[in-house]
Amino acid sequence: MKLLLVNPNISTDVTEVMAAEARRSASAGTEIVAATARFGALYIENRVEAAIASHAVLDALAEHGAGVDGAIVSAFGDPGLAAARELFDIPIVGLEESALLIAWTLGRRCSIVAMTERLGTWFREAAREHGLDGRLVSVRALAAGPSDIARAKDELRDRLIAEALKAVDEDGAEVVILGGGPIAGLAREAADQIPVPTLDGVSCAVRLAEALVGLTPRPPERGSFARPPAKPARGLSSPLGKLIDRAP
Amino acid sequence: MKLLLVNPNISTDVTEVMAAEARRSASAGTEIVAATARFGALYIENRVEAAIASHAVLDALAEHGAGVDGAIVSAFGDPGLAAARELFDIPIVGLEESALLIAWTLGRRCSIVAMTERLGTWFREAAREHGLDGRLVSVRALAAGPSDIARAKDELRDRLIAEALKAVDEDGAEVVILGGGPIAGLAREAADQIPVPTLDGVSCAVRLAEALVGLTPRPPERGSFARPPAKPARGLSSPLGKLIDRAP
Amino acid sequence: MKLLLVNPNISTDVTEVMAAEARRSASAGTEIVAATARFGALYIENRVEAAIASHAVLDALAEHGAGVDGAIVSAFGDPGLAAARELFDIPIVGLEESALLIAWTLGRRCSIVAMTERLGTWFREAAREHGLDGRLVSVRALAAGPSDIARAKDELRDRLIAEALKAVDEDGAEVVILGGGPIAGLAREAADQIPVPTLDGVSCAVRLAEALVGLTPRPPERGSFARPPAKPARGLSSPLGKLIDRAP
Amino acid sequence: MKLLLVNPNISTDVTEVMAAEARRSASAGTEIVAATARFGALYIENRVEAAIASHAVLDALAEHGAGVDGAIVSAFGDPGLAAARELFDIPIVGLEESALLIAWTLGRRCSIVAMTERLGTWFREAAREHGLDGRLVSVRALAAGPSDIARAKDELRDRLIAEALKAVDEDGAEVVILGGGPIAGLAREAADQIPVPTLDGVSCAVRLAEALVGLTPRPPERGSFARPPAKPARGLSSPLGKLIDRAP
Amino acid sequence: MKLLLVNPNISTDVTEVMAAEARRSASAGTEIVAATARFGALYIENRVEAAIASHAVLDALAEHGAGVDGAIVSAFGDPGLAAARELFDIPIVGLEESALLIAWTLGRRCSIVAMTERLGTWFREAAREHGLDGRLVSVRALAAGPSDIARAKDELRDRLIAEALKAVDEDGAEVVILGGGPIAGLAREAADQIPVPTLDGVSCAVRLAEALVGLTPRPPERGSFARPPAKPARGLSSPLGKLIDRAP
Amino acid sequence: MKLLLVNPNISTDVTEVMAAEARRSASAGTEIVAATARFGALYIENRVEAAIASHAVLDALAEHGAGVDGAIVSAFGDPGLAAARELFDIPIVGLEESALLIAWTLGRRCSIVAMTERLGTWFREAAREHGLDGRLVSVRALAAGPSDIARAKDELRDRLIAEALKAVDEDGAEVVILGGGPIAGLAREAADQIPVPTLDGVSCAVRLAEALVGLTPRPPERGSFARPPAKPARGLSSPLGKLIDRAP
Repeated sequence: MKLLLVNPNISTDVTEVMAAEARRSASAGTEIVAATARFGALYIENRVEAAIASHAVLDALAEHGAGVDGAIVSAFGDPGLAAARELFDIPIVGLEESALLIAWTLGRRCSIVAMTERLGTWFREAAREHGLDGRLVSVRALAAGPSDIARAKDELRDRLIAEALKAVDEDGAEVVILGGGPIAGLAREAADQIPVPTLDGVSCAVRLAEALVGLTPRPPERGSFARPPAKPARGLSSPLGKLIDRAP
Repeated sequence: MKLLLVNPNISTDVTEVMAAEARRSASAGTEIVAATARFGALYIENRVEAAIASHAVLDALAEHGAGVDGAIVSAFGDPGLAAARELFDIPIVGLEESALLIAWTLGRRCSIVAMTERLGTWFREAAREHGLDGRLVSVRALAAGPSDIARAKDELRDRLIAEALKAVDEDGAEVVILGGGPIAGLAREAADQIPVPTLDGVSCAVRLAEALVGLTPRPPERGSFARPPAKPARGLSSPLGKLIDRAP
Repeated sequence: MKLLLVNPNISTDVTEVMAAEARRSASAGTEIVAATARFGALYIENRVEAAIASHAVLDALAEHGAGVDGAIVSAFGDPGLAAARELFDIPIVGLEESALLIAWTLGRRCSIVAMTERLGTWFREAAREHGLDGRLVSVRALAAGPSDIARAKDELRDRLIAEALKAVDEDGAEVVILGGGPIAGLAREAADQIPVPTLDGVSCAVRLAEALVGLTPRPPERGSFARPPAKPARGLSSPLGKLIDRAP
Repeated sequence: MKLLLVNPNISTDVTEVMAAEARRSASAGTEIVAATARFGALYIENRVEAAIASHAVLDALAEHGAGVDGAIVSAFGDPGLAAARELFDIPIVGLEESALLIAWTLGRRCSIVAMTERLGTWFREAAREHGLDGRLVSVRALAAGPSDIARAKDELRDRLIAEALKAVDEDGAEVVILGGGPIAGLAREAADQIPVPTLDGVSCAVRLAEALVGLTPRPPERGSFARPPAKPARGLSSPLGKLIDRAP
Repeated sequence: MKLLLVNPNISTDVTEVMAAEARRSASAGTEIVAATARFGALYIENRVEAAIASHAVLDALAEHGAGVDGAIVSAFGDPGLAAARELFDIPIVGLEESALLIAWTLGRRCSIVAMTERLGTWFREAAREHGLDGRLVSVRALAAGPSDIARAKDELRDRLIAEALKAVDEDGAEVVILGGGPIAGLAREAADQIPVPTLDGVSCAVRLAEALVGLTPRPPERGSFARPPAKPARGLSSPLGKLIDRAP
Repeated sequence: MKLLLVNPNISTDVTEVMAAEARRSASAGTEIVAATARFGALYIENRVEAAIASHAVLDALAEHGAGVDGAIVSAFGDPGLAAARELFDIPIVGLEESALLIAWTLGRRCSIVAMTERLGTWFREAAREHGLDGRLVSVRALAAGPSDIARAKDELRDRLIAEALKAVDEDGAEVVILGGGPIAGLAREAADQIPVPTLDGVSCAVRLAEALVGLTPRPPERGSFARPPAKPARGLSSPLGKLIDRAP
């Protein structure tokens, strides 16, 4: 099967990091293709950047989504995820929702470790919007983020692991999620250093997308995720505009 | 004081309807100026259109917000409201949040009447995101929406009032909110026909914005609503891009 | 417009403090008149004193409420607020509810700072009764209250500000509410010393009351806030008794 | 042991009805003494009457509480219950809280049947204040209340039973509570006609009070239910005033 | 009346400890008989042991329940309690549910002190399953459990009391529950050392069972606690199998 | 990979039905082996049968779990699931939890259709125990269950589909789950007849188990899902007893 990984921020370096980990995580037979947002911020940390990224995700899926079996909104925080499910018929997953759903099967107290305070706020709000904050015992954040987002994993490795250990010791976390697309792969690499199951978003999203594509659920014809009726639109990219107003 | 009313959809007719009611609702001494989104859909009904509108609201505030004392995100559903508060220092209110906050003082069981099912879903999700769904005993919707959104108030008047009466009779609503920017003014006009306090978003937003401006709260320097640090950005309108990356 | 400020405790000194701040906070054209409870305790800190004050608030509104456009139950904790709304047709607000509703528009994490532990318990229970405790990340209290309730603001100023700063630093408060009628005005005076928006009850109540009076919501004929039917009563003050049993 | 049953409304006829059922429900060796509120309404149905009754309950306990082992606030809705626990050292129970606590052991879906809509609203709010509304699947009310409150049980018997059967059939109630002090005894008399366990407040309160007195919990010296410090008071009955200001 | 105390673990020493305290706690006229689980673990601390104990409780009630008026599932954590109520017609209570229900009448902030972390997890989950975790401000646990479960009360006395005091000081507990069947009686013995009401499960369960038996609620014929229809079964003890498949 | 499907009831016919659908749902390369409970009821509908089945699931996993990569507790309602995760190191999933987690990605309003009322109650309680009832808008049940549980799918097909359509029409369900192991496969067969995504437990559990095995999470050494310490046990099957007391 072919999965499209959409990076909602504008950094192609980050796209590369995430696509590489997605390929490492995928089953044999799964092909990963990647796309980067046309507009927005270098990386996404707050409500402003997430609002713009939600639009950018729809824009990218409209441009690159033809012919894929499923898609991944590849920023932890899942900008535009619910909107994307409304506009497209293929299974679409997000990094944070996937990690939280997988975490559900592994423990009852879950902690997310974030690179910055502001990311932590966003992740907490996204968990709440997903209705999946009920087992979140903490969202921890580093005092300072990365100097180069494309090398965040190496730069922050020791501090993120230290924070994960605090989540276990002080918050009683039974599952730890290392939140943030740019640090994809760290959960796998650090498994021996953290005494509870540790997840990241990219690998969970890839495996969950595979499961969903395998289940072949039919697209809804009813309810709030059915494809919306056409409506006049203006000022959008050509592929996205066509999906919305469907004018010839 | 001067308040900016931003219409998050692209219909200037709807902008006119809402600005007119805002002027009728305002205190003496309050000036209303209005702006319309540069891009998006004719009106906003679902997560796709709301995601795009959130970006458009930031875009419009960046372009038109200089010199105003406060602003109104003038679509019920409040697209981009929290993001806007993060990016701008003036008080900013939304139609749905304002109506729900005012409703809090008038009863304990509240119902929103929406023009369409899909709007109802959006309104319910916005109430939940605001943390203000605890008193919402129902969200009711008409079976069919307006044929012309700019004349929705007249076209749907009788059906909306009938639905409001059902909210009182069947759901025990103690306050009714007629949701939707395009029907601004109907709550005032129909007060005699509905036996409980009835609100709409525009008038509540105007009066609440006046109260907030009068209280002169200081902008936050801490927390998730403090102005975010600058960050490289691409593909945004010039005024919005300057607010985000602050490059000279 | 004319607003009646009812002090639910028996201290006329406290009435003066609150009325003075109400006048400072009001719009031009708003007149504030004040009344003090006929019976009860010197100030209100616990469920016993609040239960008695609820009765005293109804008693005072019955005696002094003729001819006013709106009223303020002027003790943080809002004793008798819901009952008052059931018995009178004018808009009535409380200090705590008003401050919480205004706080909703300014941040997502709110903290109340109280003069004593026992006040803190009362404020927390009132927030819960109002259905507005969802964003309350802490209620902080001083170790010792004022020696003279009428001079509490000056006596406790430094300690209240210190506690507000802890709410920001340790609890992540994005809005701080300085709870308690007797310290009205401190939020305004301390705005420069606390790095997030800071509110008190009196100013929020005045501005919110003005907004409500301006919106002219109709009194309910249905639901639990409609005026109750007459019923025989005994042992009440003459004005209150007449409102309940309406015997000639 | 000796239990004081306090009727929070002013009807001595209702006091008699409730005391008689309390005596029928008590264990051998339990003596029931009864008192009636000095002021308030004929019976209690709404927030206004409940606010006044809360004061009246404290007043009656202060006057009649000497020498008893426990007390019952004998109006379903439990006016002043938490305040009373703060002011007095003996175990005190309320009708609604007792019925809900007993219901907890008998099923997971509970319904309250009330004599009037307005009583139903009060009962629902009291359940929520008690933190015991989580299993309440419905609060049902008759279309019209009694013409004579002291004969309510006989007058409304058939209609209350019919409503209880609807609670089972339509709401899936596994336990039914017949709410309202004046109908005490009906649950016992109607047990054969309702196919699930059926409770009323008076019998549950008596048996729960006996259990509490038997357990001899020590009065709290800490927390919000410890006896409050003395404070100047004015305008209260002599016994209540003495409890609050403790002036000689 | 005759009450059956069922120990869900296999230690007859623990059965003795609990039965002795039950007899000390009971009213005159209440007879306590005791039974011990046929299979399972020495004591119950986790989901595995609780799952097995739930079966063992049904097994023991089937074998020993004839002729008793009520029963007590005598492990804090209440294994099999809801299932037992479904299968038997007499009132049945559990230690934890009983202590929580009694605590409801004594304060609004409750803390459970457990002998080990893992017990604490179980107690918290049981409180949540009962729908009674709303007032639980903490569940505290000792760093190390007893070396001999049958002498736990004496071995752990000082440490449990120290932890209870921390619950009051640090968590603001207004009621403390000393959780765990083997330490039955400690709450009574330590009442003078802990400044708030302190409960244990056995005494609360005995008194609550007496109250329930006294109320004589009828068994349900409807709902999920009505006796289930017969169904073929295999591999169960003879008394339990007969209750389930009712084959002759 | 090799997955063990454990049927918690004693019907080998039902085991066959579920194993066959599991094989149809699995990816190429996944082998399904099946086991049936040694003791319990013909099928599981209520708390009594579920309590016994929880023990039986642990018993069967202890006997048959060697050498498999993951396991499925194959009764909707997931008896013993959390306990099993505590005792075994491989990924273990349940039918209901899996279906709910997959449903999370497909809509926001979910309905479960059950074969009988009593199953519906069990499913609702299991969803709540899982912390996954937040999106459950209804649990619907047929008026009468199957006459032969092993042929339930064919016997009830039309009635289950009719109920699913009502869930969409009357409850606004956006995803439907056909609950119950014995009807595995119906969701797939009925996809064209129900206008929203429709799931069953077996296929979701198989695909989710594959995803989990692929993610290779490490077993916890900390928290409530770490393998419990050894403890003396009695009366258990030899394989289960050895896992618990680890005596040689």
